[in-house]
Amino acid sequence: MSIIGRRGIHYLHKLNSPNVPTDLIHKGQNRVIDASLTLIRERAKLKGELVRALGGAVASSSLLGVPLGHNSSFLQGPAFAPPRIREAIWCGSTNSTTEEGKELKDPRVLTDVGDVPVQEIRDCGVDDDRLMNVIGESVKLVMEEAPLRPLVLGGDHSISYPVVRAVSEKLGGPVDILHLDAHPDIYHSFEGNKYSHASSFARIMEGGYARRLLQVGIRSINHEGREQGKRFGVEQYEMRTFSRDRDFLENLVCKNGLVNSQIMVPSKVN
Amino acid sequence: MSIIGRRGIHYLHKLNSPNVPTDLIHKGQNRVIDASLTLIRERAKLKGELVRALGGAVASSSLLGVPLGHNSSFLQGPAFAPPRIREAIWCGSTNSTTEEGKELKDPRVLTDVGDVPVQEIRDCGVDDDRLMNVIGESVKLVMEEAPLRPLVLGGDHSISYPVVRAVSEKLGGPVDILHLDAHPDIYHSFEGNKYSHASSFARIMEGGYARRLLQVGIRSINHEGREQGKRFGVEQYEMRTFSRDRDFLENLVCKNGLVNSQIMVPSKVN
Amino acid sequence: MSIIGRRGIHYLHKLNSPNVPTDLIHKGQNRVIDASLTLIRERAKLKGELVRALGGAVASSSLLGVPLGHNSSFLQGPAFAPPRIREAIWCGSTNSTTEEGKELKDPRVLTDVGDVPVQEIRDCGVDDDRLMNVIGESVKLVMEEAPLRPLVLGGDHSISYPVVRAVSEKLGGPVDILHLDAHPDIYHSFEGNKYSHASSFARIMEGGYARRLLQVGIRSINHEGREQGKRFGVEQYEMRTFSRDRDFLENLVCKNGLVNSQIMVPSKVN
Amino acid sequence: MSIIGRRGIHYLHKLNSPNVPTDLIHKGQNRVIDASLTLIRERAKLKGELVRALGGAVASSSLLGVPLGHNSSFLQGPAFAPPRIREAIWCGSTNSTTEEGKELKDPRVLTDVGDVPVQEIRDCGVDDDRLMNVIGESVKLVMEEAPLRPLVLGGDHSISYPVVRAVSEKLGGPVDILHLDAHPDIYHSFEGNKYSHASSFARIMEGGYARRLLQVGIRSINHEGREQGKRFGVEQYEMRTFSRDRDFLENLVCKNGLVNSQIMVPSKVN
Amino acid sequence: MSIIGRRGIHYLHKLNSPNVPTDLIHKGQNRVIDASLTLIRERAKLKGELVRALGGAVASSSLLGVPLGHNSSFLQGPAFAPPRIREAIWCGSTNSTTEEGKELKDPRVLTDVGDVPVQEIRDCGVDDDRLMNVIGESVKLVMEEAPLRPLVLGGDHSISYPVVRAVSEKLGGPVDILHLDAHPDIYHSFEGNKYSHASSFARIMEGGYARRLLQVGIRSINHEGREQGKRFGVEQYEMRTFSRDRDFLENLVCKNGLVNSQIMVPSKVN
Amino acid sequence: MSIIGRRGIHYLHKLNSPNVPTDLIHKGQNRVIDASLTLIRERAKLKGELVRALGGAVASSSLLGVPLGHNSSFLQGPAFAPPRIREAIWCGSTNSTTEEGKELKDPRVLTDVGDVPVQEIRDCGVDDDRLMNVIGESVKLVMEEAPLRPLVLGGDHSISYPVVRAVSEKLGGPVDILHLDAHPDIYHSFEGNKYSHASSFARIMEGGYARRLLQVGIRSINHEGREQGKRFGVEQYEMRTFSRDRDFLENLVCKNGLVNSQIMVPSKVN
Repeated sequence: MSIIGRRGIHYLHKLNSPNVPTDLIHKGQNRVIDASLTLIRERAKLKGELVRALGGAVASSSLLGVPLGHNSSFLQGPAFAPPRIREAIWCGSTNSTTEEGKELKDPRVLTDVGDVPVQEIRDCGVDDDRLMNVIGESVKLVMEEAPLRPLVLGGDHSISYPVVRAVSEKLGGPVDILHLDAHPDIYHSFEGNKYSHASSFARIMEGGYARRLLQVGIRSINHEGREQGKRFGVEQYEMRTFSRDRDFLENLVCKNGLVNSQIMVPSKVN
Repeated sequence: MSIIGRRGIHYLHKLNSPNVPTDLIHKGQNRVIDASLTLIRERAKLKGELVRALGGAVASSSLLGVPLGHNSSFLQGPAFAPPRIREAIWCGSTNSTTEEGKELKDPRVLTDVGDVPVQEIRDCGVDDDRLMNVIGESVKLVMEEAPLRPLVLGGDHSISYPVVRAVSEKLGGPVDILHLDAHPDIYHSFEGNKYSHASSFARIMEGGYARRLLQVGIRSINHEGREQGKRFGVEQYEMRTFSRDRDFLENLVCKNGLVNSQIMVPSKVN
Repeated sequence: MSIIGRRGIHYLHKLNSPNVPTDLIHKGQNRVIDASLTLIRERAKLKGELVRALGGAVASSSLLGVPLGHNSSFLQGPAFAPPRIREAIWCGSTNSTTEEGKELKDPRVLTDVGDVPVQEIRDCGVDDDRLMNVIGESVKLVMEEAPLRPLVLGGDHSISYPVVRAVSEKLGGPVDILHLDAHPDIYHSFEGNKYSHASSFARIMEGGYARRLLQVGIRSINHEGREQGKRFGVEQYEMRTFSRDRDFLENLVCKNGLVNSQIMVPSKVN
Repeated sequence: MSIIGRRGIHYLHKLNSPNVPTDLIHKGQNRVIDASLTLIRERAKLKGELVRALGGAVASSSLLGVPLGHNSSFLQGPAFAPPRIREAIWCGSTNSTTEEGKELKDPRVLTDVGDVPVQEIRDCGVDDDRLMNVIGESVKLVMEEAPLRPLVLGGDHSISYPVVRAVSEKLGGPVDILHLDAHPDIYHSFEGNKYSHASSFARIMEGGYARRLLQVGIRSINHEGREQGKRFGVEQYEMRTFSRDRDFLENLVCKNGLVNSQIMVPSKVN
Repeated sequence: MSIIGRRGIHYLHKLNSPNVPTDLIHKGQNRVIDASLTLIRERAKLKGELVRALGGAVASSSLLGVPLGHNSSFLQGPAFAPPRIREAIWCGSTNSTTEEGKELKDPRVLTDVGDVPVQEIRDCGVDDDRLMNVIGESVKLVMEEAPLRPLVLGGDHSISYPVVRAVSEKLGGPVDILHLDAHPDIYHSFEGNKYSHASSFARIMEGGYARRLLQVGIRSINHEGREQGKRFGVEQYEMRTFSRDRDFLENLVCKNGLVNSQIMVPSKVN
Repeated sequence: MSIIGRRGIHYLHKLNSPNVPTDLIHKGQNRVIDASLTLIRERAKLKGELVRALGGAVASSSLLGVPLGHNSSFLQGPAFAPPRIREAIWCGSTNSTTEEGKELKDPRVLTDVGDVPVQEIRDCGVDDDRLMNVIGESVKLVMEEAPLRPLVLGGDHSISYPVVRAVSEKLGGPVDILHLDAHPDIYHSFEGNKYSHASSFARIMEGGYARRLLQVGIRSINHEGREQGKRFGVEQYEMRTFSRDRDFLENLVCKNGLVNSQIMVPSKVN
């Protein structure tokens, strides 16, 4: 309880006091959620219109920030991360051209639809079940504005669950996932939290949102991590045996989509 | 131009390219602005309903964050400030009781209506004229939910202008301002920017939004600062003569409202 | 549970597993505790002999470190504090003469009996009931070596309880305490911990170890703090009314001893 | 002299003043040393009993901290290192499972016997000849509690000498050493200090405690370093020729023990 | 304009005010420039005499600092760099022997001729045309004291132009340059500054001071960078194709001199 | 010896090796010293001409940096200080108007004659006797350009000696000094260094360069400090009795000049 303060905003978890009609709170929360999603929708729509007016693109990355940190069992700084990541992207120490010559300032290459107002929604007393839905809906709203493709800025790792779920539901079936991480994040639940940043892939696999899950770079895995991996048929590639697996991994061809938890992977997507 | 990157988000200032119909952009911007204000309204409404359901209060502070930094002529970190201020308020190193025994966790004492999505609005190409209106409208939306009183978290000092203007318009007349600062922030314009953090009080005085402006603590004032002060009838109290003015200042009685730019002042409000 | 790691050493709290005879653990713990106290005794004895051989003194301060942090409800850095405090005392940036001309390098002015091995004792599975006894016994061992007077280096504020208790027991009656702090540290228990750094003065008052408790500088006190204060007859001087109480406080004459929790107070001790 | 202060505690090096009988000091020092070793012994004994009660192990690592920094010719921070290393080991940012699946919280895998009270012993006026013996004796006390194996946490590099000496004496003959370092630490003496962190391997080789010394990773070696290397038959592998030596070094098989000064090496020990 | 302050000294750019005769300023500037160059000459001469008196050397490195930062378009810290680089070279954490066994304290290996007083010259109102000449002349003054070879400590990358120009003029013809950098620094001009740190190689190529320019490690290049590269016949080796070019680059043999912008390259110079 | 490296440059203290004729070194050092003083003279002359052409002033401050740190017995960072102080003066976070309305950018108010090249002079093997003369001569060179008045930026406190000596010699008699400091800096010599930062006022008083020395703010003084104070008739005002002396000190009228070691004092100079 004592670390709620780190979350940047105070969570009104006692809205349901005797004096406050449940209905009042519930309706108000719904209105805030609706308004939040409307704002994401309008920002995405404007960016989509802009890209299309400029001639369009096969696919265009669009940043979507999810400033959520309370599902981390240790430091909760990711609640502050999206503005800092953008600061780094646009930092004056470098130009805005990628190694392959693409110009990031061209909206057809990169746009931004801003942040999901995670802290404000939590402050209204919305629980994680509904919050995860808001995150998923936000991802879908961006996907609906072709050719925008959401590039989600976390946020602790718990957000992989609603993001992958949304992508899978929107695309109409389970996706292939290349997960680069030192941890498998596949505990059934961690310290009693089923939405823990250490449990996101358990939720993804249970829900059937992944056809194939490749976890690459694992360095910190215990008995439960291995058992859950076997249970869900996860392909776990550990760092200590990387030299053995390197050739296979560098020549992966993903066929149905790619969700990468932490850094973008330059593999081919067909 | 090179410091735009510091603002945390890239400003799409070339939306009006030949291929993009002006009308498309303009309508999209309006929809984003409307959605932003709707979100502030709904959050304020829920918090107002909650406070009233709990029995109400004579006045109840409500945090409103304005993460704006681009009108600072030096560092622009205030664009990141509101979440950091909240982090400090709820920091686990202290309890949530004020010196006078008030409990900050009681919504009748303090609520939060979140941040105006300043960076996202700017990213849509909205200029400062309209952005200042959005900030002012947000302040009014909080004031409309009695007994909420907005406690605005900046943001650089340029936001004093739209905030004071909104308060004045909402209350129906000019207000008295106690401004605690080392600088008068009263340049006609600074480095060509009429919305500069160094010009906010010039805009306030020009617009007739202050009946009386007391600037206390001035340590860094030049010729223009003094001239503007005389022109607008500002009462400027400098630090170097503070011992002379101390008794007067510690016994101020403000009669028509109080807007304080940087720290709350424990003087009596009748 | 997740912040145990911050305590600098891993706490073997499951020593009582089925395979491990209780007796084995209990005897081992006692031997470790005995050896710890013997070490404090021998260091104190050597320093006492030295001071007496040099001609003695009316009273001679002797540093005793208590590197304990786990009873803090927030950061637990005090577990690392004593070596850092010594580093500051002997820092080459200054000479070792006090403002009043005393030479700190003279053992008759200041000696050091080192740290109570708090972390090692906890790592052996010793609980806080017994740990507090070890701290108290260490204080007494220093007091037994006249003219040494222990100057205890914390450690979080929970150690005030065993320290005051030891001083009271050794002197044969309750003491007067001048407690300089922003908090009263007088919760009955905090977050379920009766040894919390926020409860040390509740333990002291319950035990009857203080004849008079003056708490000066209080800035953060809630309802329970005031109630506990009344219950135990504590004299609480708040910062907001300091100017009113200043003259009284600056002319205090303590008659039966002085224990100061955080900084040395230059009042007269008769 | 001016950097003694950095050592965290003041060294009472003038205990032998005319007024203080030598015998008094000498006896007191011996009692402090005896009590220090008793404390190490009891902690090791309890941990050994615990491991054996849990079923034992072929070998079980046991942390032994040696917070000594005064033999460093530059920064002396290693005097504060052991508690910081433990903090990192138990840090909540990771789980406690090794890459190979071992559980660090299992006492059969890892225990801790705490720190040698180096600073307190020095503060009693004990010189480095005797201090090095105390360190060596502490190492032996851990080795006597089968199956504990000391994993020593420095401390500056001067402690390699007493540690290797103790291991050699306990095992009954010279050991093979794999020394990973940028420096050979083999000056006959450095700035007049024969116990300097830059001279530890000169002492080890002179004493005949190593059968074979492999120094790997050398980047900073001067004429004396090379001459001493030749004199003692040290095998020095420099970084600039590492690619030539790599295959040999990665397939080392050590036959008589392994002492590694800075990082654990995953080679086979038969 | 607002970042002039970062340059460490205030630039008197308005010396040509109506009251100040142009001639007065011009003559004064020339005297300051002459005195600055005389100082460099005398320091170089003394170091040259010393090296020759000690028996000389084929070539002897001599540090020449150029504390210039105002041509950087982002941070301008290089204006403070030379003293910090020297601090690192002579830092007590290491000895002064190179990996190949050379002794840096031997003046035949390394001397220092100090810094060009860049900030003071600018403060006198000298513009960059003349400042660049002063830097070039300083380089030549060191080259005139055989066997000294200037090892220039920047300073932002704009100084490569006057340094390479001076070397070329002194050697009597264009040189071969191995430029290790992530950026090609070859904009015709950057943000209107022809002396920008991003334009130094455009100036070098235009002036014909390079026979061959190899840029290795390029990671951040845009359209203009590639066009300028083609225009001047630059050999650009990008990081993303480094594995393809590695063998060629590791076996380079430079025939007419080597100027390396950022780190020393261990290739052979014939 | 090991902290020479911190001084930012390597001190060639062994120039007098057998192979190097003493005469060669001596002549070279003299030429470097002459050139250094010529550079200071020319910069001062240009700034003096400029101020006079602009109409002159009664007195005009002129910054003179003395980047010297090796006479500090602890940290030696003052060797890097002057550029950092200038950076703070011109920092974009503030305007350049003083509290009393003076404009620092006006050369009649403030100019800069740059740094004495202290490190380069030391690197040529010049000892402190001569170095102190160079500093004093530099001060005089600025004083010769009326109406410039040197405002010296240290440098550790050892430079007070040559600066005060130069002022006294130039003005033709001993001066009155208001010295604000926690230490008296009046050891006869400190750790064997008569030029130590802790001995500067002993040198000043011995030389008869002060008519009256007021040391205000003393907090760290030992027996020798008090004895030296008495010996030289110094007026020492300690912090612990400040309230008693305050009225006297705030109404000081200095009659013959003012040298303040650390912060500017707003007392009247007649």
